[in-house]
Amino acid sequence: MADEWATFGADLHLDLRGAGARTGLRAALMDALREAVRGGRLAAGVRLPSSRTLAADLGIARNTVADAYAELVAEGWLTARQGSGTRVAQRSVPRRRTGSGGPGGPVGPAGSGGARAGARSRTGRTTPTYDLKPGMPDLASFPRAEWLKASRRALTAAPHDAFGYGDPRGRIELRTVLAEYLARARGVYARPERIVLCAGFVHGLSLMGQVLRARRVREVAVEAYGLDEHWRLLTRSGLRLPALPYDDLGTRTEGLPGMKGVGAVLMTAAHQFPLGGALHPDRRVAAIDWARSSGGLVLEDDYDGEFRYDRQPVGALQGLDPERVVYLGTSSKSLAPGLRLGWMVVPESLVGEVVEAKGHMDWSGSALDQLTFAEFLASGAYDRHVRAMRLRYRRRRDELVAAVAAHAPRTRVSGIAAGLHAVLELPAGQEPEALRSAAWQGLAVRGLSHFRHPDTAPAQDGLVVGYATPPDSAWSGALAALCRVLPTT
Amino acid sequence: MADEWATFGADLHLDLRGAGARTGLRAALMDALREAVRGGRLAAGVRLPSSRTLAADLGIARNTVADAYAELVAEGWLTARQGSGTRVAQRSVPRRRTGSGGPGGPVGPAGSGGARAGARSRTGRTTPTYDLKPGMPDLASFPRAEWLKASRRALTAAPHDAFGYGDPRGRIELRTVLAEYLARARGVYARPERIVLCAGFVHGLSLMGQVLRARRVREVAVEAYGLDEHWRLLTRSGLRLPALPYDDLGTRTEGLPGMKGVGAVLMTAAHQFPLGGALHPDRRVAAIDWARSSGGLVLEDDYDGEFRYDRQPVGALQGLDPERVVYLGTSSKSLAPGLRLGWMVVPESLVGEVVEAKGHMDWSGSALDQLTFAEFLASGAYDRHVRAMRLRYRRRRDELVAAVAAHAPRTRVSGIAAGLHAVLELPAGQEPEALRSAAWQGLAVRGLSHFRHPDTAPAQDGLVVGYATPPDSAWSGALAALCRVLPTT
Repeated sequence: MADEWATFGADLHLDLRGAGARTGLRAALMDALREAVRGGRLAAGVRLPSSRTLAADLGIARNTVADAYAELVAEGWLTARQGSGTRVAQRSVPRRRTGSGGPGGPVGPAGSGGARAGARSRTGRTTPTYDLKPGMPDLASFPRAEWLKASRRALTAAPHDAFGYGDPRGRIELRTVLAEYLARARGVYARPERIVLCAGFVHGLSLMGQVLRARRVREVAVEAYGLDEHWRLLTRSGLRLPALPYDDLGTRTEGLPGMKGVGAVLMTAAHQFPLGGALHPDRRVAAIDWARSSGGLVLEDDYDGEFRYDRQPVGALQGLDPERVVYLGTSSKSLAPGLRLGWMVVPESLVGEVVEAKGHMDWSGSALDQLTFAEFLASGAYDRHVRAMRLRYRRRRDELVAAVAAHAPRTRVSGIAAGLHAVLELPAGQEPEALRSAAWQGLAVRGLSHFRHPDTAPAQDGLVVGYATPPDSAWSGALAALCRVLPTT
Repeated sequence: MADEWATFGADLHLDLRGAGARTGLRAALMDALREAVRGGRLAAGVRLPSSRTLAADLGIARNTVADAYAELVAEGWLTARQGSGTRVAQRSVPRRRTGSGGPGGPVGPAGSGGARAGARSRTGRTTPTYDLKPGMPDLASFPRAEWLKASRRALTAAPHDAFGYGDPRGRIELRTVLAEYLARARGVYARPERIVLCAGFVHGLSLMGQVLRARRVREVAVEAYGLDEHWRLLTRSGLRLPALPYDDLGTRTEGLPGMKGVGAVLMTAAHQFPLGGALHPDRRVAAIDWARSSGGLVLEDDYDGEFRYDRQPVGALQGLDPERVVYLGTSSKSLAPGLRLGWMVVPESLVGEVVEAKGHMDWSGSALDQLTFAEFLASGAYDRHVRAMRLRYRRRRDELVAAVAAHAPRTRVSGIAAGLHAVLELPAGQEPEALRSAAWQGLAVRGLSHFRHPDTAPAQDGLVVGYATPPDSAWSGALAALCRVLPTT
């Protein structure tokens, strides 16, 4: 069996080369698994290797395998039961698609939750009915009309040189209004000269990975919970990533001085992702003190600082010491990821190095989008949009809290003071079952363990629920499906 | 003196860290030199080291130093005479700027060609009056109204998911219309699945650098003449770049089989940059034959394939063998560099690797710009714009040829059948003098040697003139200044 899997793994590996995007690897793995079931190489009832084993065989992240398994369970290809592992579903081998709408019917298992499992895309992949994964704003609310207006003003006013190759930091018009906005809304000490526009947080982080490596930094401390895409990106730059522990006051930054060899720390200080707390003031000071005394840098990921519901937003850490903090912001949560528009505010001494790293990639971003965003900000449209979305997301958060209280009163909802997601805390050991149940309901959601750093001991089971994503039409259905997943006793 | 220069070079090196963009290094060097003159560290009359020596001291390209010297000559800070080298100009140390419009006056030498040398920017840097450097389209002709119309249609029609994270290859809408356009206009065998959108040629080339290195390729052959930015980019990926010789039939691709260890060749087959010829059909076949028999790849830089004046455009090399050619196109010449919109058509077997490389950088580009460009293409606006610009550029080319024939009849103009630039051939040894004279006239222009690969022996002196860049208002002045630079006997 082990040999058989090794072979299968090697085959999959070839197929997985077609992947590469955020979700590309998972999709490629799902395709390869479906194909193996269809082709009969994986017979009904066969037990699949654990996600850990297959991940090691393929050299990919364990979560990617676990997610692929969960989605294939939701689609009915696989079954998962506690104690018996993940197996190929018991049924006749599904028919191949013979043509769209033809007699062969859609690709995939027949009569096993197909309708419940969600809409079928043109590529034959099943997408869940409800998406409550965190990290995405409400795309239906993108302010198209206001954006178009800003775009018209920008195109009319742009000097000719805006159409040429530009300053590697990005258009000065946007850096100027952004400096004013970040100072006002986020307490950032920002001057246009030290703002570097980028194509989103990940771009900024990859630039910092290059800069840190060029400075011979070998280790970047990260939080106990975070996004493995970010960790992988820094790891690819050749950095090691020890994790800081987490407690009720937030990330234990007072541990930094004891971590020799650490040259920077990556933090979500205003709103820990995904746990949702704000870093305690003492911890903020401890991070800055460490940076000052060690010469280290704090990389502040301020991904959704605009969205806080019950009191004033927590100001950026960067305001405490602009020479030791690299502030990274994005329009991906406040507007839309499709804009690919982010910004870095960097210490003065670092501007040259960041620009150097950026120049190597000729990644200046669209000048027209930068000018449009500058108009959008300057006209007040951005503030209006953020205010409107804050009301909208707060309403959803309140509905989520109320629904959980009504249907699963023993489930605690935490991390709700800000942002676009919440954590539903589950009794110990119940996370895998809840995820399987969610998959069965056609509900895409993440377990807390998905975000846990490998060095961190599991302390809490839970679901991380992104409540901004579903369109209005799907929101009440998504809430109902979520409540069915939660333990009622 | 040598020691003094070594020290100075080290100081400069620190300052140059603020650079990094396309022209950043040259600008930083110019600033450092101006500061040294202002501060008195470089006294009037002092002879500067040769551009070769200073370049070696600073570890930068010799052309960067030569360009900085030429511009500082144009600004009046330095003087350059045949036989006596480059020296600090004989005059009192210029006054420091004490405030905008204040009594101190602008930074820079007083009364030494300041007005002639051009407009002074807000940063105190002098820009030449006339820009005839190659590589830039007419930015004033950007079709703002048509682009805005396309933008409105795109914003109205975009599905919600366009605002989310997308396919790492870019929006399918654009890849679909681009496939049709490239097949029709450039003879490219293109299917949407194998098109990967990128942020311009340099982005595409950097992706290929990563892919080739991951494939253990060590050498990429390049043409005898080309852009050192491109060479540096590949060199930074760890590739060695032997040069192919050039003759009247174009790049001598028949030499490829003899170059063991070469895994790819970078070519401007339709329109050699900067010499301007089209690769002879036998040479095209030789390149493809080499790729087929060796398993190598041809990287086809089709930067301005749309602009050919006297006969039908030369089709892309890629059409000869889509499995062995990576086609790289861009909107930077046909529309504007500021859009940062390019495309790759890659062999099917390579799509996964390119997407993988791209995914690592999260560089998907603005979805709205991609959708706008799709509308712009589909509506026929792109074809209309290219046709209009072709007429415009051809008229300029004809005027250039006529002016040179009238004022400098012994200067041959070559490479004029296509594109946005021409080569003015000079008698042997006259290129440096012509460049100094151009700088003095406030005319930014490049010498042919700027584009010569280090392995290539000088064979021809000349100026490379980009005739698309000046706005209409400056065109006749630029032509007149150019004619004053050329030898009349």
